[in-house]
Amino acid sequence: MQTIIAIDWGTSSLRLARLDDQGRAIEEREFPRGILTVPAGGFPQAFAQACGDWMNEPGALALICGMAGSQQGWQEAPYVPCPAGLPQLASRLTWIEPGRIAIVPGLTCETDGAPDVMRGEETKAFGVMKLIDAQDATIVMPGTHCKWTRVRSGRIESFATFMTGEFYAVLRQHSIFARTMPAEDGDIDESAFLQGVDHAMRTGNLLHAAFSARTVSLFDRVASAAAPSYLSGLLIGEELRAASRDEAVVLVGADKLTRRYALALKHLGMTFRTLGQEATWLGLHSIAQEMKL
Amino acid sequence: MQTIIAIDWGTSSLRLARLDDQGRAIEEREFPRGILTVPAGGFPQAFAQACGDWMNEPGALALICGMAGSQQGWQEAPYVPCPAGLPQLASRLTWIEPGRIAIVPGLTCETDGAPDVMRGEETKAFGVMKLIDAQDATIVMPGTHCKWTRVRSGRIESFATFMTGEFYAVLRQHSIFARTMPAEDGDIDESAFLQGVDHAMRTGNLLHAAFSARTVSLFDRVASAAAPSYLSGLLIGEELRAASRDEAVVLVGADKLTRRYALALKHLGMTFRTLGQEATWLGLHSIAQEMKL
Repeated sequence: MQTIIAIDWGTSSLRLARLDDQGRAIEEREFPRGILTVPAGGFPQAFAQACGDWMNEPGALALICGMAGSQQGWQEAPYVPCPAGLPQLASRLTWIEPGRIAIVPGLTCETDGAPDVMRGEETKAFGVMKLIDAQDATIVMPGTHCKWTRVRSGRIESFATFMTGEFYAVLRQHSIFARTMPAEDGDIDESAFLQGVDHAMRTGNLLHAAFSARTVSLFDRVASAAAPSYLSGLLIGEELRAASRDEAVVLVGADKLTRRYALALKHLGMTFRTLGQEATWLGLHSIAQEMKL
Repeated sequence: MQTIIAIDWGTSSLRLARLDDQGRAIEEREFPRGILTVPAGGFPQAFAQACGDWMNEPGALALICGMAGSQQGWQEAPYVPCPAGLPQLASRLTWIEPGRIAIVPGLTCETDGAPDVMRGEETKAFGVMKLIDAQDATIVMPGTHCKWTRVRSGRIESFATFMTGEFYAVLRQHSIFARTMPAEDGDIDESAFLQGVDHAMRTGNLLHAAFSARTVSLFDRVASAAAPSYLSGLLIGEELRAASRDEAVVLVGADKLTRRYALALKHLGMTFRTLGQEATWLGLHSIAQEMKL
């Protein structure tokens, strides 16, 4: 059996795992070597430093997903259009070294007349489907750019990106809220958070609703210390406003963030389950299996 | 006749005018002494430096509008609730020196279950009403925080704040768009701008629609140099999505920004007129008249 080296090479970090034949990690590594830190032409060296020893094993195969396949990455791996399943990903790999190192393509789809893209989340989504042993699901991956991925009959049918995490970060650090809210976010205030969710639902327009994150403090309807929680609720609420209320979702991601989404989903009466487990390694393993190695 | 010293003291600038008995500026001054630059207790000195000579005139009256009346300003002038007309403003002045220096109160109203506030725009709005000689209008003042003000029977009935300008600035300078768009905005690309307006209208969710400002460049649907225009259109479109299509609006503000709003309003088939003239001095003059001096 061939050794699979699973690699998730994103914008800000590089994570690797040596997998067993079930797709479980035997050994894992993580480096602060996201693609933004790698100079042009520096990818072979960064790769060798990260897993050159693992690659010495006879028949080792490295499968890379994430931003390493973008224009700013190691080599551009053209997007595959939706709907797409594991066979489409496995047959459209971009080979760096034939038979040894390959990049998994990202996906693209068209929503509301504009293109949308993902790189890495498609692989994670297929890992999730394996973990929950299902063919249909709506998977939500909170983060800087939260992805909503609709899987039907084992294929990713469509998806949508929400810039929720990034909006929170830039508004919190660089807008009027940087000046008027406490410097530290502190623990979440659930009541203020849900007030924000409700206000987003009622208003239906973020440019207007956002100003309430200032005024609710001004009028003592939310304690100043809880204003960051209110803003967080407002943004997650605005994202959930776009979701169909009667769709069950699978929430995947870091505990701190998924807990906030869970709180909002529960408050809105939506059905969901959360998945804390690592899914990317399993997704890369599934792609390798699809290659009939 | 008393000499009116009209003062617009905002967050980042301090503007003053000595008015004639028609409310026209005889002499104007502007200083980079917004309230954020004035240390606690430093307002009397900043005021004296800006217009101490004018105030030496017998019977001089200084009327100040804007953020000087906020918690961070010279003295807090409590908000007056809507609906409010000139008599309400004139009777709720906060006097710094009785009969000589007064701060005009800001307004507050409740929209979608949250408070909204303005300081300075109420005065400008009454100046606009005088200029257009009307009792009813919807006045739009683009800027960092764009204000939509509904005037009925000469009173401000309600208003709504949109953080459009601030969202543009923080997204442009601090989000992924800082990295992926050209450093300079360049001249507006009208076609890209209107593509952005249309996409906001179609999508109805800014957190999702915003990501298209990245992907339209990635897929060459908008030239990279025109991407800032697309983002600008997306944000102004999102703001206009909240407006009633059959309401005629009066667009007031700096030429560069009002031209963009005019472009979008025209594209959406909405009725509007633009007003380039200074209206704040006339608003302060109207308040002084209301005081029956």
